[in-house]
Amino acid sequence: MKIAQVAPLYEAVPPRLYGGTERVVAHLANALVAEGHDVTLFASADTQTSARLVPCRDQALRLDPAPLKSDLACHLSMLHDVSRRRDEFDVIHFHTDLLHFPLFEEMAGRTLTTLHGRLDLKDLPEAYRRWHRYPLVSISQHQRTPLPFANWFATVHHGMDIPAVTPGDGGYLAFLGRISPEKGPERAIAIARRAGLPLRIAAKVDSADREYFEGCVKPLLDDPLIEFIGEINDAEKGRFLADAKALLFPVDWPEPFGLVMIEAMASGTPVIAWRCGSVPEVIDHGVTGLIVDNEDDAVAAIRVAETLDRARIRTVYEQRFSARVMARRYLTLYEQLLAATVPAAATAQRAANHG
Amino acid sequence: MKIAQVAPLYEAVPPRLYGGTERVVAHLANALVAEGHDVTLFASADTQTSARLVPCRDQALRLDPAPLKSDLACHLSMLHDVSRRRDEFDVIHFHTDLLHFPLFEEMAGRTLTTLHGRLDLKDLPEAYRRWHRYPLVSISQHQRTPLPFANWFATVHHGMDIPAVTPGDGGYLAFLGRISPEKGPERAIAIARRAGLPLRIAAKVDSADREYFEGCVKPLLDDPLIEFIGEINDAEKGRFLADAKALLFPVDWPEPFGLVMIEAMASGTPVIAWRCGSVPEVIDHGVTGLIVDNEDDAVAAIRVAETLDRARIRTVYEQRFSARVMARRYLTLYEQLLAATVPAAATAQRAANHG
Repeated sequence: MKIAQVAPLYEAVPPRLYGGTERVVAHLANALVAEGHDVTLFASADTQTSARLVPCRDQALRLDPAPLKSDLACHLSMLHDVSRRRDEFDVIHFHTDLLHFPLFEEMAGRTLTTLHGRLDLKDLPEAYRRWHRYPLVSISQHQRTPLPFANWFATVHHGMDIPAVTPGDGGYLAFLGRISPEKGPERAIAIARRAGLPLRIAAKVDSADREYFEGCVKPLLDDPLIEFIGEINDAEKGRFLADAKALLFPVDWPEPFGLVMIEAMASGTPVIAWRCGSVPEVIDHGVTGLIVDNEDDAVAAIRVAETLDRARIRTVYEQRFSARVMARRYLTLYEQLLAATVPAAATAQRAANHG
Repeated sequence: MKIAQVAPLYEAVPPRLYGGTERVVAHLANALVAEGHDVTLFASADTQTSARLVPCRDQALRLDPAPLKSDLACHLSMLHDVSRRRDEFDVIHFHTDLLHFPLFEEMAGRTLTTLHGRLDLKDLPEAYRRWHRYPLVSISQHQRTPLPFANWFATVHHGMDIPAVTPGDGGYLAFLGRISPEKGPERAIAIARRAGLPLRIAAKVDSADREYFEGCVKPLLDDPLIEFIGEINDAEKGRFLADAKALLFPVDWPEPFGLVMIEAMASGTPVIAWRCGSVPEVIDHGVTGLIVDNEDDAVAAIRVAETLDRARIRTVYEQRFSARVMARRYLTLYEQLLAATVPAAATAQRAANHG
């Protein structure tokens, strides 16, 4: 099958450091190639992929030191490129929220749009009512809550291709991701203190969250139990997670998916996660982790987490959240789209019309 | 003529407080109505206009207290509305940067796009090369510098409909606008101190500029000569400017136009402005103000400014920068577009095709 993947230009594919959407696109594109498909990836030039790369910006936006840039202009230019080549692909898979909606209306049935972010924004219902022909993929069932009427086609949980790591036990709890109120670093610190266990925090601090970090989190780092180690890369993550007793995921927002949960599972590490957003869909309670409602439960869950079978956690990851599982799920969807929409002859005619 | 004006949704038309683009659109729409045309204005619902308003969002984005909104989604929805009604208008005049470019390609010749912002952003050349059929209006010749190859159709200086104010003399210098490094509030303070004259600063502090204000500007406000009075509305501006010896406009960036310069002129107040961006196109040196290159020149210019004829400054404003002058200039452009593109028969056919 000839498949186009269209990634955002905010981070490289995969991102050098923090970044969710572009990471998933990286693993999806490689896994589709591994399944024998002809995959073209529209992304920034600093991308690493086994697919055919169409570089759409000299480098990804976030780490580009240029002081004045336009994320809108470069994304529009990329979509224009995709549009000019629309007839080369059987299916075009967008990861660009809704920016492409005005451009591909007459071929919406041959596209798939995976929504990666939270959807409880004031202006979204109006837009998703207008563009109701684009088949949409949610990354959890819960993500759909604010837009139940949208044109949902399927839910596909994220998958990643992560090598196994020998389980270890550094005797600490782990917090991994981004420092921000909705990710709950203060809760993680409170839980570790009450449990009397070390907590290692590997996290990015965005400039938008600098004030929160300085005011609310930094004063809590004085405790000898708590260690802040900054942002880490993929090579460091496996060991960091495998050596932890458990990953704390004390989120306080409608988490659309939570990639770090499957990164922990891939290392065989149980997750102690708040009942929130996608969590009950991702964690098998009592198998890959514990779902909790408050700090008391979270502290108690640490002892239970230590009894969970780490090899089994890895197996569940492989069965449910590997890149291959995700890619095969998407392939089924692409085939459904093609069966429902365009016979081959129509493709040729379309090519003639647009040629 | 049937004219559509498409405003951004960031501020009401006109803005309640600070805001340039939406203010110009407000004055343009009213002046076109006054010239006898059929004007439809796409804008937020809190707009005040004599044109036919199509409300595209319940309120403008910036002062909407909703914590989660999407400026992209609401602008796309607005453009979708405009697109569905494209055949009702002889010309569609966009003030939305380049967001509409992918939507109106086949009728680009019947549109006009006024660019209101700075154009020296890394991603813009690529985009303006791709969409080269949209006739573009610059708001100064200088604004074009970074994109000389773009499809420039005309330059139209901004105009506003501002009532005359009796000239006064409060004996102070004025700074009006926004606190940010590129607007030069520190320079204004230095000039006032060296001249031994009071400076009154009427300005908005954006959250993005809060740190700059606290760190760089606030410490300078201790001087009894310097008074910070915060953000003021249109009703207060006329008096504030008319009573000033001069407006200081010590900008340090490629100012695309600088609306506050014509607001000062409308009050008969001379402008002391840095040779920068649009300044030499807007200020008639020795007539409506003085163009300077450094602080020494600026201090010396204050005495010269006091000798300029305030009635003449108002007259120059009326001749060059009134809303009526701007509207007539745009009408000439609309007529040129129509003459060059669509005979009436084609309009009917287009309506049939899209109906």
